[in-house]
Amino acid sequence: MTTTSDLFPVTRVAALREAAAAAGVDALLLTPGPDLRYATGYDAMPLERLTCLVVRAEGEPFMVVPLLELPAAEHSPAGRLGLEFVSWGETEDPFALVARRVGDVATVGLADTMWAMQSLRFRDALPEARQVLAGPVIGTLRTRKSPAEVDALREAGAAIDTVHALVPTFLKAGRTEREVGRDIAAAIIDAGHVSVDFVIVGSGPNGASPHHEVSDRVIRDGEPVVVDIGGRMPSGYRSDSTRTYCVGEPPADFAAYYEVLRRAQEAACAAARPGVTCESVDAAAREIIAEAGYGDRFIHRTGHGIGLETHEDPYIVSGNTEPLAPGHAFSVEPGIYLPGRHGARIEDIVVCTETGAERLNDRPRELIVV
Amino acid sequence: MTTTSDLFPVTRVAALREAAAAAGVDALLLTPGPDLRYATGYDAMPLERLTCLVVRAEGEPFMVVPLLELPAAEHSPAGRLGLEFVSWGETEDPFALVARRVGDVATVGLADTMWAMQSLRFRDALPEARQVLAGPVIGTLRTRKSPAEVDALREAGAAIDTVHALVPTFLKAGRTEREVGRDIAAAIIDAGHVSVDFVIVGSGPNGASPHHEVSDRVIRDGEPVVVDIGGRMPSGYRSDSTRTYCVGEPPADFAAYYEVLRRAQEAACAAARPGVTCESVDAAAREIIAEAGYGDRFIHRTGHGIGLETHEDPYIVSGNTEPLAPGHAFSVEPGIYLPGRHGARIEDIVVCTETGAERLNDRPRELIVV
Repeated sequence: MTTTSDLFPVTRVAALREAAAAAGVDALLLTPGPDLRYATGYDAMPLERLTCLVVRAEGEPFMVVPLLELPAAEHSPAGRLGLEFVSWGETEDPFALVARRVGDVATVGLADTMWAMQSLRFRDALPEARQVLAGPVIGTLRTRKSPAEVDALREAGAAIDTVHALVPTFLKAGRTEREVGRDIAAAIIDAGHVSVDFVIVGSGPNGASPHHEVSDRVIRDGEPVVVDIGGRMPSGYRSDSTRTYCVGEPPADFAAYYEVLRRAQEAACAAARPGVTCESVDAAAREIIAEAGYGDRFIHRTGHGIGLETHEDPYIVSGNTEPLAPGHAFSVEPGIYLPGRHGARIEDIVVCTETGAERLNDRPRELIVV
Repeated sequence: MTTTSDLFPVTRVAALREAAAAAGVDALLLTPGPDLRYATGYDAMPLERLTCLVVRAEGEPFMVVPLLELPAAEHSPAGRLGLEFVSWGETEDPFALVARRVGDVATVGLADTMWAMQSLRFRDALPEARQVLAGPVIGTLRTRKSPAEVDALREAGAAIDTVHALVPTFLKAGRTEREVGRDIAAAIIDAGHVSVDFVIVGSGPNGASPHHEVSDRVIRDGEPVVVDIGGRMPSGYRSDSTRTYCVGEPPADFAAYYEVLRRAQEAACAAARPGVTCESVDAAAREIIAEAGYGDRFIHRTGHGIGLETHEDPYIVSGNTEPLAPGHAFSVEPGIYLPGRHGARIEDIVVCTETGAERLNDRPRELIVV
């Protein structure tokens, strides 16, 4: 079991400070969300009252916290870091407070998920500062997972695998997608997640809509069903895995393209290793699907990074020439979709190692007939 | 049971367009979140791929959607509205696409919860446009709940009341806050919510931290416990209600200030009616608490608006001179907190009517000894 100190080392704020200085960013402004959690371990709720970690290239970092959140912040993992907490009362202006403390700054880096209601107030409070995203500054650190982070993702992968192992017992002709989805959601929590991020049960034609969730559609015999599920573990790290099932015997055309998809997913996983670009992992899957004549049926990128967010850098997509490096963790999830008929997707989380890649999901990838 | 068409009338986009024109905003840019759901009923997940409803003061509205989300968007309530959907593929730039379509605009209104990763890209794609918040433009509409929205909030209030009715069976000396919280979370779902927004179980000294969630602290006999809980209903509307319990006989000092708090909460509810300012509702509670000598123990505002978000306008806080109007829905939740000892809070959702106010929660407000 990884500890908070393994996952969120106390040295991290200093590392962010160096990254900010190297990028020419005078201050990182990190509001609740994955960037703040990465920096401190503090899992603060995004709310309209400003909570903001300020990491300066020069000068000590500090965290602005609403007075009523102060006990929660102090008792959170951020309390270990020796940070100064600056609390503000209900009738004060916390943006002005940050502006006074940071003084003249030319460039500030905003947490990628900072809300407009905060970024625009920072713009007005610091009118001379150019706003850039903190993501690219923090990115090199955040995308290269530490051994403790890989452990946390491995634990998440094992947890979602236990849910996929149960899916055949939930999937039956005559049940609705929603009924199956409810069983899956309960199993996601039972498997140790603290929250359900998404449950996609796409039966028959709904399987051709990659981000369909669930509906009252009754699943019928002979229908493929795409099941794409994930959740958040107590560590904050996420799971995400897709398997495609068939309730009864699959249609012949489906079985044919499923086999193409399986080969494509395998090829992309095999292509992943240090130095290979993200787009070439995408290409490894796409070429096989295109050669088989389904190129226009694979309508999304091959994958996305994963960590404290379900979707984060690096994206496995055409145009992304970033080379993979040890610690990069991402999904490999090609799909083939026939609108009005059915669809299929296979997804594993993969982590780049020193010499190749490790898959963090290991449920069978052959078509599962239930 | 309210329907999607009652809650999200097809005329709403036109109303937003008028509001934008009246406010001098050329285009509202609404990314996934409460503003987009309010406009269309579409409950899109906030993701890094851009989904954005563009409501122009002049010209037809349209919605930019990632290609792989197109089926989900078309099947969502947004599909009823006769909107043009403009899809984009994985290697296109959707910000440039919006910029080309809206042409020269002087002012754009961003969804209040738009992420910086999108607002900064809109800034770069539309460098001549001044960014303002959409909230104040949409606000007058969104804060004045329609009868269907009040019904949805009433349904949410009744659902969370059934959970509070069960809390005495969960709360026992010797159990941890986390154990009690798990039972409450399950009951929130059983009561008809689609998700748990928060579960605060603050026992003994933890009750003095207003936003404490749960911990492994064992609840002991004679301890007050603050239970503040809420979730999201299928309609998208939220519940939020607090009651304070005592496991066994309450400490004498606690019983004394609890009674002050009960009178303060009652007074603030009684003060709410059309024309009265938000800050005077806050003052009605605060004066009673201050007179009893606990003024510095009531460290937060009296309440927040509620609807598609748990916290939204209008805020019941000193300095907010906005007069209440029929349809305003908000919490009334004064609290008294003794650091290191215990705390108490009582919270109901209240909706302003033509002549007064209606409470949407009706569990007993006296101290509940279990």
